[in-house]
Amino acid sequence: MQNDLIRRVAAEFFGTFWLVFGGCGAAVLAATFPHTGIGFVGVAFAFGLTVLTMAYAVGHISGGHFNPAVTVGLFAAGRHDGAQVVPYIIAQVIGAIAAAAVLHVIASGQPGWVAGGFASNGYGDLSPGKYSLGAAALTEFLATFFFLFIIIGTTSKGAAAGFAGIPIGLGLTLIHLITIPVTNTSVNPARSTGPALFAGGEYISQLWLFWLVPIAGAIVAGLLARWLYEPESIAGTIVVEERRVA
Amino acid sequence: MQNDLIRRVAAEFFGTFWLVFGGCGAAVLAATFPHTGIGFVGVAFAFGLTVLTMAYAVGHISGGHFNPAVTVGLFAAGRHDGAQVVPYIIAQVIGAIAAAAVLHVIASGQPGWVAGGFASNGYGDLSPGKYSLGAAALTEFLATFFFLFIIIGTTSKGAAAGFAGIPIGLGLTLIHLITIPVTNTSVNPARSTGPALFAGGEYISQLWLFWLVPIAGAIVAGLLARWLYEPESIAGTIVVEERRVA
Amino acid sequence: MQNDLIRRVAAEFFGTFWLVFGGCGAAVLAATFPHTGIGFVGVAFAFGLTVLTMAYAVGHISGGHFNPAVTVGLFAAGRHDGAQVVPYIIAQVIGAIAAAAVLHVIASGQPGWVAGGFASNGYGDLSPGKYSLGAAALTEFLATFFFLFIIIGTTSKGAAAGFAGIPIGLGLTLIHLITIPVTNTSVNPARSTGPALFAGGEYISQLWLFWLVPIAGAIVAGLLARWLYEPESIAGTIVVEERRVA
Amino acid sequence: MQNDLIRRVAAEFFGTFWLVFGGCGAAVLAATFPHTGIGFVGVAFAFGLTVLTMAYAVGHISGGHFNPAVTVGLFAAGRHDGAQVVPYIIAQVIGAIAAAAVLHVIASGQPGWVAGGFASNGYGDLSPGKYSLGAAALTEFLATFFFLFIIIGTTSKGAAAGFAGIPIGLGLTLIHLITIPVTNTSVNPARSTGPALFAGGEYISQLWLFWLVPIAGAIVAGLLARWLYEPESIAGTIVVEERRVA
Repeated sequence: MQNDLIRRVAAEFFGTFWLVFGGCGAAVLAATFPHTGIGFVGVAFAFGLTVLTMAYAVGHISGGHFNPAVTVGLFAAGRHDGAQVVPYIIAQVIGAIAAAAVLHVIASGQPGWVAGGFASNGYGDLSPGKYSLGAAALTEFLATFFFLFIIIGTTSKGAAAGFAGIPIGLGLTLIHLITIPVTNTSVNPARSTGPALFAGGEYISQLWLFWLVPIAGAIVAGLLARWLYEPESIAGTIVVEERRVA
Repeated sequence: MQNDLIRRVAAEFFGTFWLVFGGCGAAVLAATFPHTGIGFVGVAFAFGLTVLTMAYAVGHISGGHFNPAVTVGLFAAGRHDGAQVVPYIIAQVIGAIAAAAVLHVIASGQPGWVAGGFASNGYGDLSPGKYSLGAAALTEFLATFFFLFIIIGTTSKGAAAGFAGIPIGLGLTLIHLITIPVTNTSVNPARSTGPALFAGGEYISQLWLFWLVPIAGAIVAGLLARWLYEPESIAGTIVVEERRVA
Repeated sequence: MQNDLIRRVAAEFFGTFWLVFGGCGAAVLAATFPHTGIGFVGVAFAFGLTVLTMAYAVGHISGGHFNPAVTVGLFAAGRHDGAQVVPYIIAQVIGAIAAAAVLHVIASGQPGWVAGGFASNGYGDLSPGKYSLGAAALTEFLATFFFLFIIIGTTSKGAAAGFAGIPIGLGLTLIHLITIPVTNTSVNPARSTGPALFAGGEYISQLWLFWLVPIAGAIVAGLLARWLYEPESIAGTIVVEERRVA
Repeated sequence: MQNDLIRRVAAEFFGTFWLVFGGCGAAVLAATFPHTGIGFVGVAFAFGLTVLTMAYAVGHISGGHFNPAVTVGLFAAGRHDGAQVVPYIIAQVIGAIAAAAVLHVIASGQPGWVAGGFASNGYGDLSPGKYSLGAAALTEFLATFFFLFIIIGTTSKGAAAGFAGIPIGLGLTLIHLITIPVTNTSVNPARSTGPALFAGGEYISQLWLFWLVPIAGAIVAGLLARWLYEPESIAGTIVVEERRVA
């Protein structure tokens, strides 16, 4: 059982590492490559596919959160064991920081290297499209609200079994297609934390927003789900949650 | 039971909000971002993924229409309860207007803001490629006809269970890949109504087309389906329709 | 039973109409739209998604061929009733011509209209990248061979049930990602015939290649499949074939 | 039984042929086509879709490796019969070389032909973005590690049955979205070998890296999987492995 928790947090560590290495890696290494760069479309698919792939690979072990806002939102919905909230979040943050560190080793000093924001999230002057704090907060709130809505809905009683990893992963792709210009897209405090530590001062000073707002959006979605979905589908513990991809 | 209807219309409200916020949001915020903008390909995936994600999230609650033409077309096919046509459409239109309002709050006044059409649909001078009224009407008719064909076919008796959300969502992506240059792609009167209210006069004066034609195409598809698919698969009520994603 | 054949050929008519209207429509209307055009990536997804959507919508009625080479290849593999080869091909060709006619009505004379090849297939001077007849023939042979390989393999005994529409549709996307520069991608004699009739002389004089070579590639794949896949999975008739998406 | 091995290696030959013909073909023929070229996004989808399509087409015959690193990694995880490691690798390498040869016949001497690297992998001066040997090795190690992690996880006990081909194929797309600028993306020694033989000297002299590092990453992932996933899911032989797509 203790070993079981270790396997769960290991799954969250690797999943969040992959999310940050893959999503931020695509942004840093490939988005603006001359002529054939992948642009925001490629970055959006990269982020979404990290979740799609790991949801099917370790969803049956840990539930496949890879995101503190997801963990808190599922707890608010009654789908995640309260005692496993903090261990999950710690594993996610460590995974995100480790991925950003490795990505920094790969990218820094290479010919195409531009220090810049290192795929960090930001508002105001640090927003890709210079969106204000208010626009950024509203965008992140709604995006995370709907991300949790999709996660909870696709794993609720009556939803098609086995399919959830597809709408959840491609839902993150969709969120990036909409919101990269506004905040560079967080909806995930761990994903925001990793790169910011390497981008430095200004980015770190804005991290509070990308912890506060996604978690708030996730909690509201979790509470709404308690009403919208049938009680038996949300009263469960981790066992119910494991229906996510199984 | 009354509570059941409330949950259904709530699902349609949130689903249509997501469709307009996500699809039009991607168009307004990200399509023409300098160098790395998502273009029509990104907008096409955004619209389709709003439906793919919400079909799996709330399809088992409301059937996942998010579109007055879909509701009417399924009624014409004998797949939707007549008493629930008007409540569904009201929820969809309110959801679409609310989403356009929030998107307007986020985008207006920001550095990259260009008032323009706000992702509205149009023909003639308001068509992205200046297509005529006739070309626009023919295009919208065919696109909505095939969209309903796909929706009804993939949820008919004998179709692979659980998969329908994928062809339905990606079918909307496909429709956008073809038709954005012609009308900016409607096939959905609610999606047309939301942004038009914020784009103003000229766009509102063309809204009639995007109510009339998609609904006409949907009805023809619904009637065809009564012949093409086995009777037992289309004689049902909402119960049969719920097979859409379950 | 006679009514059953009518429904089958109707399904093939609508499916092939959608393939040509959607795939060639995306190429003609949206591929080169200024700044935000969908390019070859968008056209590739459009073609593939026409098949993905219709495979799930009518695959359980007709098998979802939409392509004379597929019909002949499945016959060669022992998967399609010989008496239904000609009716299927007639329905496919009529569907393709009807779609090209409607697309011509929508596009011709509009502001962005360039007569050009109307998304026709070609080699030599009519190849997008000016590839020779030999390169074109080799490319079409291999692409159709693997397309049939995928179709037969994903619907063979032991393959994951219900999934086939996804690899088959996205397989056509893949084929376009590789081969549009060479021949504008046929692998489908009906798809080649429709637009060529509207593009005129030179394109019609090359049609022979896009009937001969795809059908040859399909037959070779069908014969290989008789050896590679277990006998009981290829000895069937249309009943076995219907496992394609069901 | 002997015939069974022949069918397995035939499946690996055709699958790896398709991977190299499709992935490298998209890169060579379509990536940089003027104005409408598919760029790295298109190449990434092409590589991923070769695996997605063939995983569903022949996964139930051979397990669908198409990659010596996958074969060795599954052996390390206890999922592949040791006696079938060498035959699989031979079939994969021959398939890759045959595909590169056919692609060379199609592309060389045509109007758009640029000899260049012929989609080969490389580091230093031969890296698309001029990444160093160290950056290339670290990137290939991590990418192959996670590729095997996804393959093993999605086919482990408790994972959603039938879905594995989707995350495995799109996982390879994701890996290309991240790493094309660094090494042109290998994670597959056979894929590296085929084009290098036609690109010539310098590329051949770097082949060692693309055999050594992907196989090392795959072995580490295989050993990790022995701990992370339940014993009964990794103690099997080829029979268990066949659960990959069935």
